[in-house]
Amino acid sequence: MKISELGQFRLIDLVNEMVNKSRNEESASWQNLIIGIGDDTAAWRCDDTTQLAKVDCQVQNVHFSFDYVTWEELGWKALAVNLSDIAAMGGFPRYALVSLGLPPDTEVDDVIDLYRGMLKLAKSSGTAVIGGNMSGSAVVFVDVTVIGSTGDKNGSMLLRSSVKPGDKVAVTGYVGAAAAGLEMLRKKMRFDAETTNILRIGFARPVPRLAEGRLLIESGVKAAIDISDGLLADLGHICESSRVGADVYIENVPVHPKVRESFGDKALELALSGGEDYELLFTASREIIEKVKQSARCPVTVIGEIVAAPGKITLVDGKGNRFSPGKTGWDHFKV
Amino acid sequence: MKISELGQFRLIDLVNEMVNKSRNEESASWQNLIIGIGDDTAAWRCDDTTQLAKVDCQVQNVHFSFDYVTWEELGWKALAVNLSDIAAMGGFPRYALVSLGLPPDTEVDDVIDLYRGMLKLAKSSGTAVIGGNMSGSAVVFVDVTVIGSTGDKNGSMLLRSSVKPGDKVAVTGYVGAAAAGLEMLRKKMRFDAETTNILRIGFARPVPRLAEGRLLIESGVKAAIDISDGLLADLGHICESSRVGADVYIENVPVHPKVRESFGDKALELALSGGEDYELLFTASREIIEKVKQSARCPVTVIGEIVAAPGKITLVDGKGNRFSPGKTGWDHFKV
Repeated sequence: MKISELGQFRLIDLVNEMVNKSRNEESASWQNLIIGIGDDTAAWRCDDTTQLAKVDCQVQNVHFSFDYVTWEELGWKALAVNLSDIAAMGGFPRYALVSLGLPPDTEVDDVIDLYRGMLKLAKSSGTAVIGGNMSGSAVVFVDVTVIGSTGDKNGSMLLRSSVKPGDKVAVTGYVGAAAAGLEMLRKKMRFDAETTNILRIGFARPVPRLAEGRLLIESGVKAAIDISDGLLADLGHICESSRVGADVYIENVPVHPKVRESFGDKALELALSGGEDYELLFTASREIIEKVKQSARCPVTVIGEIVAAPGKITLVDGKGNRFSPGKTGWDHFKV
Repeated sequence: MKISELGQFRLIDLVNEMVNKSRNEESASWQNLIIGIGDDTAAWRCDDTTQLAKVDCQVQNVHFSFDYVTWEELGWKALAVNLSDIAAMGGFPRYALVSLGLPPDTEVDDVIDLYRGMLKLAKSSGTAVIGGNMSGSAVVFVDVTVIGSTGDKNGSMLLRSSVKPGDKVAVTGYVGAAAAGLEMLRKKMRFDAETTNILRIGFARPVPRLAEGRLLIESGVKAAIDISDGLLADLGHICESSRVGADVYIENVPVHPKVRESFGDKALELALSGGEDYELLFTASREIIEKVKQSARCPVTVIGEIVAAPGKITLVDGKGNRFSPGKTGWDHFKV
């Protein structure tokens, strides 16, 4: 069977099962492991602190095309998507290792631009780039591993598996701008300068919600994920990990105003299924969410509620009509 | 300028300079950093221990071809090359993150074979696979990040920069089998079953010298590197880091006997410049090397001596003739 037939998520499940079977309980590595594959990052004990690590990759003509993304934007984004996972654990980023695949006819200036973009974000987020690798390759890829740590000695983290029925579902910022930006760039759609700029930044230069991740921890939130696959798909991931379901009040979803303006009827779909917004989706009691709202520098919006039905995501419109979502995310191997 | 014109090593220097300029001395990450880019792994303080990390990538039709390597071998090797860097620091491997690039028409069974090969080595080396990523890609790539730790609280490590004039240069095991194996596989050369097997394993299933790396630390060795680019190229790397040179007694180089038998006059070149043997090349006093020899389970051979002349590698034959080496390593971007 081809991996495109099996699908990305089932392939990942299959591999995870193999990894779990290979556990070697006698080794210090496994003994100190707190979280393996399956959350936003892995986590392990290291003396008094908890360390976090995550890898993610940007591949040419899969995640991006140089028809519409600059090398500098690529460098920024390749690091940003990993820092976003550290944010979704409520951690601090520490170190990054960068593995590049580059065709031999790549311009040296382009590689410098890529690093310029990445190092801007590294510096502002307190991340040190400590390792790298360069390989020849038929396509450009930028694979980044980020290592982080939790902020407190208790090792408090935002886990996918800590969601409880009755919790409210909330999201930071706005959603939909990344997917709208990609569509605009791909189809060469023309909007006014401000809209063009906002949508481009949404797709190409996301800002990881690191401060917000730590605010969630400090406010008592236990569960979060970052929106990479899409709001509904990522909500599905935390529901699956916690064996719960969720109702989503679609009229409450904070679709980016510029996406509403420019994409009309399609805006909600972009916001629910588009992905790559790198906002934090989290669950907590209404009281805790109120606390977060008071301190957050960005909008925080309640968009739904956790229910007991495992894995069942239901969309609820303003009139109380309930329906199942369709497409809920992105599979890399679908052709 | 194209990166193929600048060359891999000068491109890496250029990027390292950018990374160093971006240092943010106020961040905890940089404050706790012991070694950034430029040694076998990075190293940083984490409470009482020293953590190590390294990334390396295997790219289809650059590092390997499925014409002559199985998926299981690829999985083994992708992890092995990283563990070898941990060995070259004298550390213990702890965790691995695996980022795969896969064309959509990849067979599921092939991905399982890849993980089977990798997990065999992970288990036997005490490495826990804690994270992964799968991306669509036009070519297969396997990018592995390994995180390790030093064995003692002092954080003793084998550094490229600790080499002193007068030190002897020694190497574990035999060299040349990996390059000979690659040549055999590429050119479909036929040898007897034993030779074929040894050369194939040499190229496709290297065993990282983890126990030997720790033995070096315990014996008082301060400087080592693993042979990936080639014996002379890697000797060049440590000489450059330590601002010294080296004389290499070519008749002492432990060319693998099967390579001598099968490749005749070409054997020495394969051993000196072929690379990918993943043996440890180290420097120390003759007394310390004697101590290593007594406890090592593999051959340990003195092959040269460190001299004061910075960066100058000289080959010395049995008659005392001295000459400069030619090709000394592998540049990924040369076409």
